[in-house]
Amino acid sequence: MRHDHLISAKQLSRGDIEGVLDRAAEIAADPGAFAEAHPDTLLGLLFFEPSTRTKMSFGAAMKRLGGGTIDMGSVDSSSVQKGESLADTVRVIEGYADALVLRHPSEGSAKLASEFVDVPVINAGDGAGQHPTQTLLDLHTIRENAGLDDLTIGIVGDLKYGRTVHSLAHALTNFGATQHFISPESLRLPRGVRYDLREAGAEVREHADIEAVVDRLDVLYVTRIQRERFPDENEYRQVAGEYRVDVDLLESAAPGLTVMHPLPRVDEIAPEVDETDHATYFEQAHNGVPVRMALLDQIL
Amino acid sequence: MRHDHLISAKQLSRGDIEGVLDRAAEIAADPGAFAEAHPDTLLGLLFFEPSTRTKMSFGAAMKRLGGGTIDMGSVDSSSVQKGESLADTVRVIEGYADALVLRHPSEGSAKLASEFVDVPVINAGDGAGQHPTQTLLDLHTIRENAGLDDLTIGIVGDLKYGRTVHSLAHALTNFGATQHFISPESLRLPRGVRYDLREAGAEVREHADIEAVVDRLDVLYVTRIQRERFPDENEYRQVAGEYRVDVDLLESAAPGLTVMHPLPRVDEIAPEVDETDHATYFEQAHNGVPVRMALLDQIL
Amino acid sequence: MRHDHLISAKQLSRGDIEGVLDRAAEIAADPGAFAEAHPDTLLGLLFFEPSTRTKMSFGAAMKRLGGGTIDMGSVDSSSVQKGESLADTVRVIEGYADALVLRHPSEGSAKLASEFVDVPVINAGDGAGQHPTQTLLDLHTIRENAGLDDLTIGIVGDLKYGRTVHSLAHALTNFGATQHFISPESLRLPRGVRYDLREAGAEVREHADIEAVVDRLDVLYVTRIQRERFPDENEYRQVAGEYRVDVDLLESAAPGLTVMHPLPRVDEIAPEVDETDHATYFEQAHNGVPVRMALLDQIL
Repeated sequence: MRHDHLISAKQLSRGDIEGVLDRAAEIAADPGAFAEAHPDTLLGLLFFEPSTRTKMSFGAAMKRLGGGTIDMGSVDSSSVQKGESLADTVRVIEGYADALVLRHPSEGSAKLASEFVDVPVINAGDGAGQHPTQTLLDLHTIRENAGLDDLTIGIVGDLKYGRTVHSLAHALTNFGATQHFISPESLRLPRGVRYDLREAGAEVREHADIEAVVDRLDVLYVTRIQRERFPDENEYRQVAGEYRVDVDLLESAAPGLTVMHPLPRVDEIAPEVDETDHATYFEQAHNGVPVRMALLDQIL
Repeated sequence: MRHDHLISAKQLSRGDIEGVLDRAAEIAADPGAFAEAHPDTLLGLLFFEPSTRTKMSFGAAMKRLGGGTIDMGSVDSSSVQKGESLADTVRVIEGYADALVLRHPSEGSAKLASEFVDVPVINAGDGAGQHPTQTLLDLHTIRENAGLDDLTIGIVGDLKYGRTVHSLAHALTNFGATQHFISPESLRLPRGVRYDLREAGAEVREHADIEAVVDRLDVLYVTRIQRERFPDENEYRQVAGEYRVDVDLLESAAPGLTVMHPLPRVDEIAPEVDETDHATYFEQAHNGVPVRMALLDQIL
Repeated sequence: MRHDHLISAKQLSRGDIEGVLDRAAEIAADPGAFAEAHPDTLLGLLFFEPSTRTKMSFGAAMKRLGGGTIDMGSVDSSSVQKGESLADTVRVIEGYADALVLRHPSEGSAKLASEFVDVPVINAGDGAGQHPTQTLLDLHTIRENAGLDDLTIGIVGDLKYGRTVHSLAHALTNFGATQHFISPESLRLPRGVRYDLREAGAEVREHADIEAVVDRLDVLYVTRIQRERFPDENEYRQVAGEYRVDVDLLESAAPGLTVMHPLPRVDEIAPEVDETDHATYFEQAHNGVPVRMALLDQIL
């Protein structure tokens, strides 16, 4: 994976994934040893959409390796305003940086960008498309807390639109996990995704009810149910309430259950859960730094 | 003050203050000696409100110590948009940085943030609340120009709403200063603040008229009178004119009078004053760097 | 040029220009040799208007020299909002940085700023005024691709309002170039500029038609024709179409023709041109880094 683009989690073999996670574990164990690994290196940050954690953690990762960043800033303070194409923008900025991190609202934009430049492009989310470093940090968090072998995971919430979930589910097929998908009828996993997962050998089960399955899980991965998916406010509230994770629900869980969430959360996990040993979502967010350090270290 | 939060100037003893100011003086005398004091250190900048000087001088301070920054960016380009709570935001970002600087419109937000994280939190202004590093750089400027012992200071302008003024006045009680407060009737020091100052042993005098007292002062600290405090534009103009500091007024002053202002100014100090030896407000702004370096050096 | 301001390309002698370009060539040949040339140096970025390539390439230049940047951010997140004057803003920020880069919508603002501060000020564009580092990187690109001696250049597009063009044309008078100006009647070079160029000894020719002259050129410098210059959309489209550079046009060109553009482009150069050896506009943009490194290296 030297001097390559990272566009989709699907391009990563089990070996690729384990290579990044092994390095991330090494870095997390002794970050100081990597503090000067990539001095004189500049990472270009091109965020065409708002982002806090992804952008900051890429910045932190590059700086923790001894390098620096140059930031395009927000779209309204950039040349994009003047009608410049993405292909032109990235061909200019590749002259300023040693690698580019791109978030863009259009699916396929990272792939397109990668075809125009010589420096590595890392996809940090392209609309409804892919966000592979999120998948890597999710896998790292699972491996550190529950292990990736013989895993039973439940994924709950908006399974129809959530790119995070589709990428993670697909990546887990490399490790033979049993996957339970829990959602309201209207937000079920798209048929195409379900088909792909089964083709890849995954054991896939679907549920409408979270209580029915929580006692069997090693990991519960919670995602947001967005208000705008529901025509009716009341219907939204009812559904959101049913899938909310709280201490009552967790009483039925195994003591070692790992609760994850890609964040930001709104109401999907009750604040009281933060105090329990199940809560792993802040650790998961923090894992963005060693995992992105590991990736940058391999790519640069 | 190692690994502690700095939420309010009130938490600082005379010894704490002198510790920071002594270090700041050392740094100002030989900044190069501190250029590698904190390599591999990242300061998280969380500014939920616009700021130029505070944010830039914190950034400069961290970089002058050999470290780096990661910036949340403006609120509209962040997850806050998606409804994330402040407690969640800071718990995520503490994983990316070694200390956090927080500016937020809500009083008490820095205190709240500090209760959720393990890294040091520095309050860079929380609404009508505190802004302790402004107080420290004000004290440093006074000490370098007039000395903190046997000080006679006049504080003029909006004494009712100005958080800068309340913090500074309180901090000066540690040094036994004589404090003159000069303002229009409608913007007098709140009764509670006056009471607190006297409780702390301060000699407090109030005036409506700046000419009456200017000849007695070592330091004249000028603050902005905001248009929006007055229902009537004409009334505002009249008041603003009365409290404007110009060369005429300064003719009655002692030759060594130090004129300060937290900036930005609008019309409170005439531009002609900039050319006089009284003008110390740009030096005061510049002092933000050594003082914040000193603080970071102690906290990290 | 040590500790001096760079306000206008006109202030640079032929010797000054060659000094910067020689250094830029040295840097481009071995950037690693300069990676620690200016550690402990901070460059203040004050962009009062949107910019991508100028701001990012100044940032990259400073960091490639081992230094760092502090960024004022966008105007709506700064004190400018509160009515602070430019003179006050720069007098504050000079305390945080070792040099300032200023972009501002008002002509003359960089000159004004330079009169208030002691650190070097670099003009990165002041409205309809000057943008001298763009001129330097244009000259560097010409020198590396076509040579500056005995040059025949064609400059096409909006010659009336384009500051880039006026600066470049003036700078080229130092090298005795033959200059062809190609534009629609309504966007011809202003009489004053034409007069100045001839006073400076330039050979100046004007054309309405690009085909008539393209075979004679070493360099074709293309600029944008802005829609807002035309009252009528149809008229704009017709004019823009006539001056569009495409593969058909380039068939009449010399094989070694260098095509340049300050970017961003919209439709002035067809994408198919990107694949030809003529296309030098991305290289031109990339040259912003070594040229700005050379300038900073001399100024700091």
